[in-house]
Amino acid sequence: MKTCRVSFQPGGAVVSVSEGTLLLDAAARAGILLDMPCGGQGRCGRCRVKVESGEVTGRENIHLSQEDMAQGWVLSCTARVVGDLAITVPPKVERDRAIVELPSARAAAQIALHWPRYPALRRAYLELTPPSLEDNAPDLERLRRGLRQEANLEGLELDVYQMRELGATLRQDNWRVSATLDASGPGNRLVDLRPGRIKGPLLGLAVDIGTTNVVAYLVNLDNGRLLGKASRMNRQVSCGEDVISRIVFSQREGGVDTLQNLAVDTINVLVKELAQAHGASPEDIGDMVMAGNTTMAHLFLGIPPRYIREEPYVPTATHFPVCTARDLGLAIHPRASVYCVPSVAAYVGGDITAGVLASKLYESDTLSLFLDVGTNGEIVLGNKDFMMTDACSAGPALEGAGMRCGMRAMPGAIEDVRISSLTLEPTIKVIGDVPAQGICGSGLISAVAEMLVTGVISKGGKIDLDYVLSRQPERPRARPGESGPEYVLVWAGEAGGGTDITLSEVDLENLVRVKAAIYAGIMVMAEKSGIPLDTVERVLIGGAFGQHINVEQAIQIGLLPDLPWDKFHFLGNTSAWGAYNILLSKHARSKVEELVAGMTYVELIADNSFMNEFTASLFLPHTDADRFPSVAHLLSR
Amino acid sequence: MKTCRVSFQPGGAVVSVSEGTLLLDAAARAGILLDMPCGGQGRCGRCRVKVESGEVTGRENIHLSQEDMAQGWVLSCTARVVGDLAITVPPKVERDRAIVELPSARAAAQIALHWPRYPALRRAYLELTPPSLEDNAPDLERLRRGLRQEANLEGLELDVYQMRELGATLRQDNWRVSATLDASGPGNRLVDLRPGRIKGPLLGLAVDIGTTNVVAYLVNLDNGRLLGKASRMNRQVSCGEDVISRIVFSQREGGVDTLQNLAVDTINVLVKELAQAHGASPEDIGDMVMAGNTTMAHLFLGIPPRYIREEPYVPTATHFPVCTARDLGLAIHPRASVYCVPSVAAYVGGDITAGVLASKLYESDTLSLFLDVGTNGEIVLGNKDFMMTDACSAGPALEGAGMRCGMRAMPGAIEDVRISSLTLEPTIKVIGDVPAQGICGSGLISAVAEMLVTGVISKGGKIDLDYVLSRQPERPRARPGESGPEYVLVWAGEAGGGTDITLSEVDLENLVRVKAAIYAGIMVMAEKSGIPLDTVERVLIGGAFGQHINVEQAIQIGLLPDLPWDKFHFLGNTSAWGAYNILLSKHARSKVEELVAGMTYVELIADNSFMNEFTASLFLPHTDADRFPSVAHLLSR
Repeated sequence: MKTCRVSFQPGGAVVSVSEGTLLLDAAARAGILLDMPCGGQGRCGRCRVKVESGEVTGRENIHLSQEDMAQGWVLSCTARVVGDLAITVPPKVERDRAIVELPSARAAAQIALHWPRYPALRRAYLELTPPSLEDNAPDLERLRRGLRQEANLEGLELDVYQMRELGATLRQDNWRVSATLDASGPGNRLVDLRPGRIKGPLLGLAVDIGTTNVVAYLVNLDNGRLLGKASRMNRQVSCGEDVISRIVFSQREGGVDTLQNLAVDTINVLVKELAQAHGASPEDIGDMVMAGNTTMAHLFLGIPPRYIREEPYVPTATHFPVCTARDLGLAIHPRASVYCVPSVAAYVGGDITAGVLASKLYESDTLSLFLDVGTNGEIVLGNKDFMMTDACSAGPALEGAGMRCGMRAMPGAIEDVRISSLTLEPTIKVIGDVPAQGICGSGLISAVAEMLVTGVISKGGKIDLDYVLSRQPERPRARPGESGPEYVLVWAGEAGGGTDITLSEVDLENLVRVKAAIYAGIMVMAEKSGIPLDTVERVLIGGAFGQHINVEQAIQIGLLPDLPWDKFHFLGNTSAWGAYNILLSKHARSKVEELVAGMTYVELIADNSFMNEFTASLFLPHTDADRFPSVAHLLSR
Repeated sequence: MKTCRVSFQPGGAVVSVSEGTLLLDAAARAGILLDMPCGGQGRCGRCRVKVESGEVTGRENIHLSQEDMAQGWVLSCTARVVGDLAITVPPKVERDRAIVELPSARAAAQIALHWPRYPALRRAYLELTPPSLEDNAPDLERLRRGLRQEANLEGLELDVYQMRELGATLRQDNWRVSATLDASGPGNRLVDLRPGRIKGPLLGLAVDIGTTNVVAYLVNLDNGRLLGKASRMNRQVSCGEDVISRIVFSQREGGVDTLQNLAVDTINVLVKELAQAHGASPEDIGDMVMAGNTTMAHLFLGIPPRYIREEPYVPTATHFPVCTARDLGLAIHPRASVYCVPSVAAYVGGDITAGVLASKLYESDTLSLFLDVGTNGEIVLGNKDFMMTDACSAGPALEGAGMRCGMRAMPGAIEDVRISSLTLEPTIKVIGDVPAQGICGSGLISAVAEMLVTGVISKGGKIDLDYVLSRQPERPRARPGESGPEYVLVWAGEAGGGTDITLSEVDLENLVRVKAAIYAGIMVMAEKSGIPLDTVERVLIGGAFGQHINVEQAIQIGLLPDLPWDKFHFLGNTSAWGAYNILLSKHARSKVEELVAGMTYVELIADNSFMNEFTASLFLPHTDADRFPSVAHLLSR
């Protein structure tokens, strides 16, 4: 087969590949990771590169205009090498900024540690008796004896690599050592042995790996205090914005490794940041608990998630082996154990079980609905007597992705919109003291609710151009756009990016599908359990996104069920809080394993009632107005 | 500091080292491992190299003649680099031949497997039900269920690396897999998972790592049969011939790694040989049990043995963590578990506990003395009610090393000597149908016993030149030699090497010290236990060397106690047989752990009665003739 030479600018990397190789694989071989939110399915148009010279096949794509193509632009996920090529890679949009925590999030109810502190990790300082001819027990036996007598710890486990260091370590400070032990398994596994007495606390890390965001909590295991939080966008986003795109990407050669490394890189950045902020060394972190959805857990561990996407939707595992930081490349203590909170099923992951643990739903008499809305929506209905769960694929719209002007909840994002029913002019609230650059999930819900209530859009999600023109004859906010009618939230002159910030009917359809999926998921829970939705006593909203939802507006668009507002409670990042609890208490760890075993999973993918509910929910707020009496009342005015 | 360029011939390797570097370290950096039986103490003279040009310090050594020095010969363990050098390394004496098993060894009593077969390693062939929407349990759960339902195995353990392969492996042959599991720990650890049904038996390896020899048994774990044996000289011999020299060598930079690699290399050669001979792949070997003395176990695992040699003689461990073949670089299945038989103390190792297991001493009423004589001598006295043990450093003389004409028991070695009391002419028996090249341990005992009985030497080990001359006036076998009087066993004309094969008084002293140490060790056991030696009902002789001893002659020189010959039993390589038993039975493994806990260890190094007994034993057969009445009777004739 013909070999072709492909050079990349900037950087000048050159690789030799076989004819027929995808440009993105050639780029990967040159060490260039292209942005690929759709996972390389040719659907997002973000992996475009410019062919300066040479021949490729697969130039045509819906995301490229005639002009683009004339200039040499191709999508690297569809174009294949035919001969020698010179390629220019456009500058990457920086998407890896630290996520700013919103004031609303800071104010959100925090779930305190509600377990007696009983961490799996312990440290003991020992002053051993030096050996003599009368007592010449081997070094290992002497250490065991010290642990037993001075720290009441039985059953030391260590590996051959640690045995190699043992003799020297024990003697270095005349038989005074600090031993750090992990008791999460049946024995006490030696994590660290150092001469002398170690200053500074024993640290642990609780991590929530979201499809979009990764959040890390640094914890003092000696007293249970949360030392600090940090969060960043999951670097995997460049390989697909939602779970399905990531799985598609993972099926490329080396795809799983790439995704695994990106997840670990993201965490390592957070670790460095937290360690610096608290004057600690990353090596001081001796234990880690990770909560994430099932696909995130697979990718974090490097397990191919492929079969999660293919019928009958089988993950490799829902319970994961405890491994060490070194196994995964995490820059904490190499022997720190890494526990992944178990999943219930392919689409109900450890983030949800950790969330249920944090919510305490399982120990209450109160019938509760637990929701975690992010890129996917997961739902748990139950109380101390039963728990039922399902999950629906919501898509990334609420996380600011997949929309023309969508963005994450960070400075410049529109987070709240009010539209005057008289003038149809919007008033926006932007995160941070900066001009608006786009709209985030909560802003989107807010905007759509206002557009519905003011008549800018119909119950079917169509923009009423005539009505807007009738109210705004001078400079109407609604207009025909490139891809159908659109509504201008911010005029270019006031916007940070210099172009109009708009919501198109395509964006609206996108949101309607998201909210329909979530509402249908809730309804199926009610149906399957035989419990009418109006008997639910509490709605607990977890997940990072949940913190920013305006309940009133979320009900108006039919995302949340029409229940009295005081039944809704925002719990913040329940996934991270659950991980934090598990890090600090072995009992919490046992409990979460018990919870997983006790949850009944309903598979929506093959469920007819879900499809019926979903279809019926593709209206604002719903086909059946009786389901949303408060909204019907409002709209009738 | 000045940097010097050192080149080595043959091969032409060149390295840059700092001024003052030992030549042997420079050679090691060039990848040249010099022969170093004394461990690099400047005592054996075997690491000589020739300085062709350039300056070194440390040229003088007792092992170099004026002529040697004039020619440029230096010892690489004492000479240090001063400037740029050109070095010639002399051809290495090939010491890595396969050891020939003697007919006597083949005929030796073999200890059959005397435990119900219950290996830690098991294999199960499973036909799993493929997943469906009705049964979409995760892959791991499906495998667990199959093991439980089809093979009655509970509690599967696997690591994250195996999880990464799991999905693909299960699907490759439509959910038919062969799982190999190691149940030596609390659960069932997955060693191997392959699609389809595996042909061929499950194999295990039992290895005895002796200071001088390594022996491997290839075992069919399905039926318990011994498929084959192989043995080779321990490649570590080039870094020291006895345990102490090896420990000295291990303290050099990189010394432990070098020794670890050499032990593993030796085993890997045996594995290759056995696998080829039996049409198996080394990867088919899924379990391994290793027995060796405490220093050998440390070096095999890469644990520095340094403190074994320094008062108060403390090993890092006597119980070793089970590790995998991959941890150690063994060329069997990388996940095969490697169990090291536990030691009792620094100088009573796993070879002895395995030997006691094989001997069944621990379950008999009969008061038995168990001896394993090799480079060290280990002694166990006891029966089912008690066991006491000690060890003495015998030195390598009985293994054919440290003597001018000493050699291992292989073709060309004199193994038996008879001297006519009339003519004083010797009749020799040589291993193999070849001219004599040297004398091995059993030949040495035989020669010395005959020399004593015929009056060639005195009870003090001195050669009686006048007496020999009186009987052999023409061509006397006894003569003054370079280093004192010597006795010619074979004249140059009949010898394979073309020079006389002799025994000097220095060689005799060497042997006398060996036999004195062993006999003193036996006597201390008797004293400490308060049991008179003549009440011992059986003497069980284990170890490779033990197979070749002539009891009558060993008693004549005072190596073995003067008991009736029918009390002596030769058990062959008890260390390897013990390892074989452990490989095939989990009960045997538990038993050996129990035995170690039940053995009382007597430390001879700090023991006055040992020194007294040793000094009294420095005569042939002993200072106190009453201890050896049968020999006294013989000598009085």
